[in-house]
Amino acid sequence: MTRIEHLTESGLLARITPGLAQGSDVELGPGDDAAVVRMASPRLVITTDTLTEGHDFLLRATRPEWIGRKAAVQNLADVAAMGARPQAVVVSVSAPRETSSELLEGISRGLDDRCAREGASVVGGDLGAADALSITVTAVGALPEGQAPIRRDGARPGQVLALGSPLIGRSAAGLALVLAGRGEELVGRISADGSPADGDSADEDSADGTSRATGPDMTPEGLVAWHDAPDPEIAPGWTVCPGRARAMLDVSDGLARDGGRIARASGVVLDLDRAVLAADAAALAPAADLLAERTDPWHWVLGGGEEHALLAAFEEGEVPPGFRRIGRVRVPAPGEESGVVLDGTVLSDLGFDHFG
Amino acid sequence: MTRIEHLTESGLLARITPGLAQGSDVELGPGDDAAVVRMASPRLVITTDTLTEGHDFLLRATRPEWIGRKAAVQNLADVAAMGARPQAVVVSVSAPRETSSELLEGISRGLDDRCAREGASVVGGDLGAADALSITVTAVGALPEGQAPIRRDGARPGQVLALGSPLIGRSAAGLALVLAGRGEELVGRISADGSPADGDSADEDSADGTSRATGPDMTPEGLVAWHDAPDPEIAPGWTVCPGRARAMLDVSDGLARDGGRIARASGVVLDLDRAVLAADAAALAPAADLLAERTDPWHWVLGGGEEHALLAAFEEGEVPPGFRRIGRVRVPAPGEESGVVLDGTVLSDLGFDHFG
Repeated sequence: MTRIEHLTESGLLARITPGLAQGSDVELGPGDDAAVVRMASPRLVITTDTLTEGHDFLLRATRPEWIGRKAAVQNLADVAAMGARPQAVVVSVSAPRETSSELLEGISRGLDDRCAREGASVVGGDLGAADALSITVTAVGALPEGQAPIRRDGARPGQVLALGSPLIGRSAAGLALVLAGRGEELVGRISADGSPADGDSADEDSADGTSRATGPDMTPEGLVAWHDAPDPEIAPGWTVCPGRARAMLDVSDGLARDGGRIARASGVVLDLDRAVLAADAAALAPAADLLAERTDPWHWVLGGGEEHALLAAFEEGEVPPGFRRIGRVRVPAPGEESGVVLDGTVLSDLGFDHFG
Repeated sequence: MTRIEHLTESGLLARITPGLAQGSDVELGPGDDAAVVRMASPRLVITTDTLTEGHDFLLRATRPEWIGRKAAVQNLADVAAMGARPQAVVVSVSAPRETSSELLEGISRGLDDRCAREGASVVGGDLGAADALSITVTAVGALPEGQAPIRRDGARPGQVLALGSPLIGRSAAGLALVLAGRGEELVGRISADGSPADGDSADEDSADGTSRATGPDMTPEGLVAWHDAPDPEIAPGWTVCPGRARAMLDVSDGLARDGGRIARASGVVLDLDRAVLAADAAALAPAADLLAERTDPWHWVLGGGEEHALLAAFEEGEVPPGFRRIGRVRVPAPGEESGVVLDGTVLSDLGFDHFG
């Protein structure tokens, strides 16, 4: 192990930057004051987000590569949710002086791998000292001329609410296992091949951790790995959603809370389909049974954040491949506020808030 | 005072985002998954940097607005140093739950003010919980078609080395005063008009804290304010440098260290002019006299970072307004390595390293 305090900043960067693959759209990669990237259009889509040790992840209950993947995906998904393909990211890492170089190299590798899968390059970064490890990623993409950004306010009564993931709530279930003190043990049991969601699956057919043969990995190990590095399909955001999705975001803070954002922005009610989501809750029930304090898996389905799956409203008959119907958009009843409803109950207060 | 733990994330954002002025190039500002900005060209210039409490600033020895200004300028200067005008920034703030909303609002105001002065908009951000306050800014600009980025490797023998600041070393002098325990007292003495570098100056003629009547503010208060919110002129980076500067960067880690980057990338020696820089050292001498442990102000001139002034190589006769000659570019002597030299002494090891 090499502690970074024994390396110069440039020595550390010399270990990291050669591993960052640069796409053909990168005019100037890491190493100067700023990077230069030829975007697909001048209409820039940009977003930023931070992961902090002790708040957003626990080092003992994850892997360096997974931290990098999670930091990537939460930003890539935001760009995708506007209907744009992510092209490049920059990353700022703050780390204690006693941090190992290997940890930072692992984070960088995970970040680069996850970006590369979408065709995005890690074009620059910054390293600084701090008391706690944190990783801030900024992702950029571009909207083609004439293509409107897919906002949150375009849901209209009669449309279908659809989710770009075969199962929601895995990240929250994994978090519950981590908070129950089982993270270190479960992560230790997963083979160290750098693939977070493989768990006990026999194959790796799909990028979102869903094996075509066996479906999502619902083992405790698989759920913790999904929490540590959620891996939803985000490419549909720019491949099939432009011109089709009327409102879209990625599920960062839970179905209820994020759905509520679409509902309020659009002035509608999102009526969730209990029969559909009951399958998600049932799939998560065995994990809930593992916890000393029994949790209702419906809380994970409706309130669980950090999934980063795409949630969108489509006109009836226009739901594209990769999305499944989970509800419908309707007019608020007289006196009813905009929000997310399940069986007549408003769910808007469920979900994750960073400070509340 | 309102602690942010008593606000929801959206409640906090509702206090901050309405104050962020959006330029006409912003198609979609804060509030969705990502922002959309129409760049001046598709050739994106992008950079990111973090400020962390206890490492990059001390809350008791600065002001919220200055933290925002510093976070802005260190990124805007990086974009400018490539020859591009900064158009937009995004910011990720991590803060302890007991942080006051007023502190975050002040940071946001300082960030927005400093960006607005260059015509850049704060188009988005993220707020998360952490044990220490940190601010990560990502700045973007665009290079016009056909305009090469101004890199570090274009310095050639015979060129002039020039600095886009009337005085270097103020930030290091201010830091020395802070580290000597005088920060709180000195900051408290400065009028609370939000203008960090005014100090005792009679007027505010120039954006870089240089009064036309009295020159740079060399009072102890002015030096601490400059350290807390360095305010170099960066617009020459995109107004007069394209097509003229052969190599350029901004001074983040000190003249010796940053000059060394140009020297090594270009395979040249940068020979500093003692007579010119002696004036900087002389101007800083009174501040050095205030410290119990006498410091040679030359260390601040040659090794002081966080100035963010532009440092560039120009052909003889092409040094533009706003820059002053501080040395010349020459061929390394037989057996001499590339680097920065003063009176025959190599200075490359001076300066700030985040981990070394």
